Amino acid sequence: MNHPENISSSQLDQRHIQTDVILEKVVEAWTELQTQQPLVHCITNSVAANYAANVLLAAGASPAMIDNPFEAESFASIAAALSINLGTPTTEQMQAMQIAAQTVTAKGTPWVLDPVGYGPILKWRSDMADQLVLLNPTIIRGNASEISTLAGNQVESKGVDSTVSSNQVYLQALPLLAHCECVAISGESDFILSKDLNAVIQINGGSYLQPKVTATGCALGALIAAYSAVTKPSFATISAHVHFAIAGKLAFEQSQSVGSFNVAFLDEIHNMSADKIVQYADIQVLK
Amino acid sequence: MNHPENISSSQLDQRHIQTDVILEKVVEAWTELQTQQPLVHCITNSVAANYAANVLLAAGASPAMIDNPFEAESFASIAAALSINLGTPTTEQMQAMQIAAQTVTAKGTPWVLDPVGYGPILKWRSDMADQLVLLNPTIIRGNASEISTLAGNQVESKGVDSTVSSNQVYLQALPLLAHCECVAISGESDFILSKDLNAVIQINGGSYLQPKVTATGCALGALIAAYSAVTKPSFATISAHVHFAIAGKLAFEQSQSVGSFNVAFLDEIHNMSADKIVQYADIQVLK
Amino acid sequence: MNHPENISSSQLDQRHIQTDVILEKVVEAWTELQTQQPLVHCITNSVAANYAANVLLAAGASPAMIDNPFEAESFASIAAALSINLGTPTTEQMQAMQIAAQTVTAKGTPWVLDPVGYGPILKWRSDMADQLVLLNPTIIRGNASEISTLAGNQVESKGVDSTVSSNQVYLQALPLLAHCECVAISGESDFILSKDLNAVIQINGGSYLQPKVTATGCALGALIAAYSAVTKPSFATISAHVHFAIAGKLAFEQSQSVGSFNVAFLDEIHNMSADKIVQYADIQVLK
Repeated sequence: MNHPENISSSQLDQRHIQTDVILEKVVEAWTELQTQQPLVHCITNSVAANYAANVLLAAGASPAMIDNPFEAESFASIAAALSINLGTPTTEQMQAMQIAAQTVTAKGTPWVLDPVGYGPILKWRSDMADQLVLLNPTIIRGNASEISTLAGNQVESKGVDSTVSSNQVYLQALPLLAHCECVAISGESDFILSKDLNAVIQINGGSYLQPKVTATGCALGALIAAYSAVTKPSFATISAHVHFAIAGKLAFEQSQSVGSFNVAFLDEIHNMSADKIVQYADIQVLK
Repeated sequence: MNHPENISSSQLDQRHIQTDVILEKVVEAWTELQTQQPLVHCITNSVAANYAANVLLAAGASPAMIDNPFEAESFASIAAALSINLGTPTTEQMQAMQIAAQTVTAKGTPWVLDPVGYGPILKWRSDMADQLVLLNPTIIRGNASEISTLAGNQVESKGVDSTVSSNQVYLQALPLLAHCECVAISGESDFILSKDLNAVIQINGGSYLQPKVTATGCALGALIAAYSAVTKPSFATISAHVHFAIAGKLAFEQSQSVGSFNVAFLDEIHNMSADKIVQYADIQVLK
Repeated sequence: MNHPENISSSQLDQRHIQTDVILEKVVEAWTELQTQQPLVHCITNSVAANYAANVLLAAGASPAMIDNPFEAESFASIAAALSINLGTPTTEQMQAMQIAAQTVTAKGTPWVLDPVGYGPILKWRSDMADQLVLLNPTIIRGNASEISTLAGNQVESKGVDSTVSSNQVYLQALPLLAHCECVAISGESDFILSKDLNAVIQINGGSYLQPKVTATGCALGALIAAYSAVTKPSFATISAHVHFAIAGKLAFEQSQSVGSFNVAFLDEIHNMSADKIVQYADIQVLK
């Protein structure tokens, strides 16, 4: 995988076509999400639980936060997708995560791993993330610090926030594709490494206010899971990022402070349409 | 209890009077809620905790989320009502639920059971719901799938969401009145089965956006508990549903997407008045 | 410490000057908060987790909710400040609180204790609060009932809400200064007892709607911790209260019901400026 420099015009044409194909798939995925309203099993953190559920409902999916080890297997068995987030784990949630991940892996149900806070300071969750990676999540997503560190690099983080920029590190995430179909790094621009498309996709949009609202990354992980129930992993990951980027951009046009921005963001997540996706999606194919 | 068909005109008159009596009781209950600001002990899920507390505060009550087994008895002893919600149970919360339910049952304090996700897929909580039902909750509330299944029927659910309509199944809930004073089934219309009124009450209103906001049912359960501290079980249940239905209807007139709707909904929960109740309550007595 | 009666005019002048010094320190602290964006380790309750994180982000800090005992030591070691809130403790969180408090005490990192619900009814958390007080929190904050009871007085509370007024009891908190640098009692007016300033500071502002939004006190505790990472304990405590009081006052000018008030409040927390602090801060030095 090469850095996107010195691109010839024929390559540019190729990319233009590919972007159109992707855009069509995103519209299709969004439509399917509204039709199927897939049941998404979420094991998430105490900060994100309410917010992620509201984002999924607003987007068209049907979330259920089942995070105890006694029901994780039976529920994961019937869910259309699973989202595991390591934000504020408890011992019981950790057990539930392992059980649910094993269950969906055995059944072939798509699942997303969000290794919040991955790194040497937060060892307990990081050990669990390492174990979960070996169960082959369909998609791994996180911020630049988390994903780069998970991929084996030494990167600083600041608590659960990244200290490096997504466009600096996305190529470092390449080794993770040995374990999953798709890796997503969110940041000012989002980068998605896709194994089956053999490409890196860059998504632009959103607003600088998004990191000022807690749990947006966690909710994005849950939304990727929702989309993965209705389309292939790479298109699911791209679709969720495009959905977020457009909603963030349109919300910011209405509100420039965090409280009202977040209200508008949920509105725009819900008010998405095929037309808005076509009009506002900013997708670039790099490679 | 018979299906509400072939009603004679004299029965209609009876019902008209009865509705007026109920409306008066709802206004009275709302007024008492503002005056007494009852302390409501809530053991609820991680998705609903913040939202249910905000709904109770907005409505006039004083919520306290005490969900550990070490303080459940002493706190349940002083609370004016208890709300138990099985959304995302932990082992410690399960212990707290049993202790709190036993405490309030012994003291005669009213309490509400919300068996979120009841059904064969979520066995751990369903077993606990079965045990709690035997402690005779004052009121049992849930969506159509949950209540119908709890009453012994085989109904499909989709995670924690209902797949059947409230008006199809409310009569199936009848056997539950052997264990409680009142059963409430929320949905497009809400149905309340009352033992002491010997009637089924239908509440209309709200908005189609309400199920698109997570934890509204959970917050409704907590609000029923709040009202049960200031009036009889059936009027408490009706009052909470009317309060929600009017707030939902008025909020929807202001906002047609989920984020801003939810903000307006909390505003309208807080801005309720005797006049609004009289003007907007849509209560029908069936039987 | 004497009650502020019979004050001579020379003392009034003294106080006027002191208020100006404090105001300057508050502006400085707010500016530093924006610059340093300190990492704040929060162990908080399920009701407050999302809200407190959003308030800290809006205010300029970088929150991380790390509430398990297995990562509490390593994370507390790198955090710029720690906030411990006893709202809805679990056994694992209780362990995390002790470990984190011991860690920051040993390192000299500032930390805030918020003994939510302290009193004879909620013995488990109150015993923990007593233990944590002996570890010398930098700042202790709570409502009038909690702080007065923690200081050894017999005061009634209503669940987690106060039944006494802050201006009635703030002098009762004096003995707590044997264990900490600063004590803050929030209420209609806020009172801050400072050991190093040898004074009681009164902060006015806010809105009567603030207690109608859940977890505002918890978020205030977390914000005090954030400020304590960038300035001395007393100025940190004052700064956080001033930040809240101004945001509450300005939010109320925009919205008079709880849902929209809370959205505006988050906006105003984020839109704070040195100018607004100078224009709106209502600080009185009592002693």
